[in-house]
Amino acid sequence: MEIRELLAVTDHTLLKPDATWAQIRALCDEGVRFGTASVCIPPSFVRQAADYLDGRLPVCTVIGFPNGYATTAAKVFETQDAVANGADEIDMVIHIGWLKEQRYDALLSEIRAVKAACGGKILKVIVETCLLTEAEKIRMCEIVSESGADFIKTSTGFSQGGATPEDIRLFAAHVAPHVKIKAAGGISSVADARALVESGADRLGSSRMVALAQK
Amino acid sequence: MEIRELLAVTDHTLLKPDATWAQIRALCDEGVRFGTASVCIPPSFVRQAADYLDGRLPVCTVIGFPNGYATTAAKVFETQDAVANGADEIDMVIHIGWLKEQRYDALLSEIRAVKAACGGKILKVIVETCLLTEAEKIRMCEIVSESGADFIKTSTGFSQGGATPEDIRLFAAHVAPHVKIKAAGGISSVADARALVESGADRLGSSRMVALAQK
Repeated sequence: MEIRELLAVTDHTLLKPDATWAQIRALCDEGVRFGTASVCIPPSFVRQAADYLDGRLPVCTVIGFPNGYATTAAKVFETQDAVANGADEIDMVIHIGWLKEQRYDALLSEIRAVKAACGGKILKVIVETCLLTEAEKIRMCEIVSESGADFIKTSTGFSQGGATPEDIRLFAAHVAPHVKIKAAGGISSVADARALVESGADRLGSSRMVALAQK
Repeated sequence: MEIRELLAVTDHTLLKPDATWAQIRALCDEGVRFGTASVCIPPSFVRQAADYLDGRLPVCTVIGFPNGYATTAAKVFETQDAVANGADEIDMVIHIGWLKEQRYDALLSEIRAVKAACGGKILKVIVETCLLTEAEKIRMCEIVSESGADFIKTSTGFSQGGATPEDIRLFAAHVAPHVKIKAAGGISSVADARALVESGADRLGSSRMVALAQK
């Protein structure tokens, strides 16, 4: 698999707490130049990035990020706000505590409410695999499949671990056919990226892929 | 300084992404039993905790947490939602990228908008000292002093470092007299806690103080 093909499925990502507009604008320029799938950026930069890109590249942002324990009302508001500001893709974090409490209906309702707030835009559901048991990962495959969301996504990149080929294969075995898979967090080489795609990832989230391609 | 006095100024904190209601309820029980200043918990548990505590202890929660780059509109919504759910104290994170860009007016406007949304409840402004230069820390003392917020707070506990006595002394030298100081992040001993209070901290944020008191 060529680096160009890997870039084409990468959400080129900058989610550092101290990111500036100059850095986000440079990320947008790189995304266009290297043909990434999108730029993935903080909500507060979505409007500027959407105006700057003017349709040249989709804008992805994050909701309830990275801890997932905002209220459902807040996640819905954030999503509507992001879409109004020009976001094309929404990556939300589930309420991990609810999964630990086996509150599956609350998890499903929340994802459905956020999907409704997306108004047709793409929704990816981050489950933070490094904090979950295998049974919890499988349960989230089922809930995301039932929810109407477009993707299940492994990781925020802000917890103890990122995407692994094992988790991608587990997802691929347990999600419905209409659910795509995004691998994110800790991708530090072209070999990592290739292994994740070969395991079944449809999309990658990475802050490093463009730099790796320039080497 | 007695451990009891330290507990009385501690926001007893649980902000792990996978925290459950059982853990939050136990935190509430400990807070009441040990006489802490409040419990500091995720927004999604505020209503349950406020109902459970029924006025026995203030409920503190976090806004735009921990990365600070939600939109102002989202931070205002989150604050209104938290207050409606029963929050007594609001700990918000500033937009750190704006500080790096020297967008001081935007920072001031955002804090004022969140303070207005607090409807009289206490607002603490987290500046994430470990990511700031000394000049930026001083600038935030000035902006927080001008904003009408009640506290300046050092850290989220989710970045590279926490509160230091040096930063507390710097804050004490640069905030207006009406602004209190909360030291949070990385407090791992009674000696740490005492040093921060002796340096000028009015409030501590800690997940460990009650456990230390039980030793």
